[in-house]
Amino acid sequence: MLADHLYNDLHVQWVEASVPERVSYFKALPLADAQEFFQELSTRNQCEVITNLSHREQMVWLRILDPDDAADLLQEVSEEERERLLSLLDVATRNEVQALLKYREDVAGGLMSPRFARVRPEMTVSEALSYVRKQASGATETVYAVYVLDFHQHLLGVISLRTLFGAEPQQLIRDIMRSNVVAASDNDDQEMLSRLFAEHDLIAIPIVDAENRMKGIVTIDDIVDVVEEEATEDIQKIGGSEALGAPYMQISFARMIQKRAGWLTVLFLGEMLTANAMGHFEGEIAKAVVLALFVPLIISSGGNAGSQASTIIIRAMALQEVRLTDWWRVMRRELAIGIVLGGILGTIGLARILIWEHFFHTYGPHYQLIALTVALSLVGIVLWGTVAGSLLPFILRRVGFDPASASTPFVATLVDVTGLVIYFNVASIILRGTLL
Amino acid sequence: MLADHLYNDLHVQWVEASVPERVSYFKALPLADAQEFFQELSTRNQCEVITNLSHREQMVWLRILDPDDAADLLQEVSEEERERLLSLLDVATRNEVQALLKYREDVAGGLMSPRFARVRPEMTVSEALSYVRKQASGATETVYAVYVLDFHQHLLGVISLRTLFGAEPQQLIRDIMRSNVVAASDNDDQEMLSRLFAEHDLIAIPIVDAENRMKGIVTIDDIVDVVEEEATEDIQKIGGSEALGAPYMQISFARMIQKRAGWLTVLFLGEMLTANAMGHFEGEIAKAVVLALFVPLIISSGGNAGSQASTIIIRAMALQEVRLTDWWRVMRRELAIGIVLGGILGTIGLARILIWEHFFHTYGPHYQLIALTVALSLVGIVLWGTVAGSLLPFILRRVGFDPASASTPFVATLVDVTGLVIYFNVASIILRGTLL
Repeated sequence: MLADHLYNDLHVQWVEASVPERVSYFKALPLADAQEFFQELSTRNQCEVITNLSHREQMVWLRILDPDDAADLLQEVSEEERERLLSLLDVATRNEVQALLKYREDVAGGLMSPRFARVRPEMTVSEALSYVRKQASGATETVYAVYVLDFHQHLLGVISLRTLFGAEPQQLIRDIMRSNVVAASDNDDQEMLSRLFAEHDLIAIPIVDAENRMKGIVTIDDIVDVVEEEATEDIQKIGGSEALGAPYMQISFARMIQKRAGWLTVLFLGEMLTANAMGHFEGEIAKAVVLALFVPLIISSGGNAGSQASTIIIRAMALQEVRLTDWWRVMRRELAIGIVLGGILGTIGLARILIWEHFFHTYGPHYQLIALTVALSLVGIVLWGTVAGSLLPFILRRVGFDPASASTPFVATLVDVTGLVIYFNVASIILRGTLL
Repeated sequence: MLADHLYNDLHVQWVEASVPERVSYFKALPLADAQEFFQELSTRNQCEVITNLSHREQMVWLRILDPDDAADLLQEVSEEERERLLSLLDVATRNEVQALLKYREDVAGGLMSPRFARVRPEMTVSEALSYVRKQASGATETVYAVYVLDFHQHLLGVISLRTLFGAEPQQLIRDIMRSNVVAASDNDDQEMLSRLFAEHDLIAIPIVDAENRMKGIVTIDDIVDVVEEEATEDIQKIGGSEALGAPYMQISFARMIQKRAGWLTVLFLGEMLTANAMGHFEGEIAKAVVLALFVPLIISSGGNAGSQASTIIIRAMALQEVRLTDWWRVMRRELAIGIVLGGILGTIGLARILIWEHFFHTYGPHYQLIALTVALSLVGIVLWGTVAGSLLPFILRRVGFDPASASTPFVATLVDVTGLVIYFNVASIILRGTLL
């Protein structure tokens, strides 16, 4: 392990540096440190370094990577570059890496390591121990558990190293193994896999193909990255942009614009409907300009209530606290919440106008009716925002989209347009015969 | 491990059930299943079950928990209940649990397990192996690594089980241990700890006190929960509510209102300034009602741009991609991004008004000036939203608040008020002498 201060120094320099600078930093490291540093780099950074090294150096650095890390790196480079780099690996590793490259990055097969400790059911404990010892010096992943496979690689059971340690040397593996194994399929989605880890409190999960042949293990340290990555994507979508897919400082300017301009334009086009809605009520506004004063207050309150509701539901869905079939229970709850929240804001709005009028006399003779209009509209719009915001993630998931696309700006836009319609309709009912 | 289908069945029933139902489900389980099920339950659920059992049953179930899990459970109950439950533990475990209870839940000490494999530097490999074997059958946590401690429990080094396995039986531990250990202090924050795991790709980190005496280990499976919990808090704050602190279906109605009404009221009070701002320009609106039509479109575009910027920066800060000292680099970048995004939306807005006028003739003789007003205001407001949204997380962190409090509704509110001022000022410059 690199000394902490050295690692931190390097890390700071690294983050600030350009690619050519990074390559020269890397080349200047003493070999032992460089090896460790290289293994700790992100795939993207490993890629930057390796593509700028000589053929001979590439072979050295590619070969120190575990097959799963090598596969990740090779997924970042161009097709031809991939073929060339693959040819630098020894045959056994190349086969492992090629098998891994067949999987999408975000499924279990794309995360797994093909190196794990395995024994046969007919071995004795002492045979198994010396067999595992031999594998441990070769395989680079930590030994978390020992998997029991038959001749055709079918997964039969699992034994913890601790059980193996504690057992009598002459016991047979088949008698002490646990045959009820939590396993995942190689095509399972990474999000599902992270749920499995969380539910069962596991350190490693064996990955099997459709015929229950064991292909590799996914370990919990890979899942930390998955959990973090999924949260990042959700947060960026909730904020109303596409998932960036790269660290803030590393994404190019053009790509950043591209990720942000798309949604912003869509939302802008949607929000244009507010100009139509407002135009529809132009006559009312001309008669009672005072109505226009409260437009931003009212529509934003609906948007805020909707933002709260949608983010809370998006997260609850991601954590599987709430499933698609729960939509009606959620809806009833959010209806009640919307009424209470709307009541609170409506009361404050009412008080604000009455108090203001008392001191400044700005809202004219019908200020009480205006106050009532604003208060009732607030109840309706906050309720609508809450219901729409909480329903939208369900609808998106139902039709096959990511619920996180129910971003706060999306919900706000949706609520703005309908909010105006609610407000001006309430106004025309209450103010008819007086102001309108 | 419980069979998957059984676990899932139970899990579904469990989520839907009331507390008394849960307790009876639990009591109806066969003992072996119950034990595993209990250990896999969340602390909150363990607590619900255990507080509803008899004194005798409590003793059984409390004793099957690891000390760190027992400490978590005891942190959920009342002071007296805690004392009573503590007295049910055996003396050794009680001491371990009491030591853990001294720590806050969100620091390394509050996450660690006091049970880990330890050896002395002067042992031979074969002595160490048999010593670890003895500990492994007692300690319930998986053996990840073996820590080398002196007589006073000072942390001297670490050896992986694999190294121990592969070494010659007569070698001394001190000669094969790695003395450069990545360790954390017992009072380190859990977020810092999860960074340490990510940076160094570790499975377990030893926790030491101020005198470098080893107190326990934190393992990566605990960190998955930390990462998930921190992301949940951030997402809920970004959506404009307080962090809920409990699953959606389990939080009470009153508590849900409390978590959501606070921020909503604060935002509402802030948004009231829009009514003042609009009131300030009432004369302009009365003269040119057409100006009011674009108010929602313009202020929401600023809010959307601000939401994007603030969520992207909040997440980049949480992942330490961006630090406080980077504020100026971020600002320059966001300035440029804001100009481009504002330019895009301004152009679309300009086109929208010109095309609309061409077909419907609704904006009067000065429609070109109105189009120009809207377009220029959009550039200014999107730019301002982007800059304000990206700057706010830095300011919040600088003054000691959570950057995630720069929620999308907060940014939108901030931008709404200033956006109105920008819009009406642009309008009064461009439309002076014609409409105004």
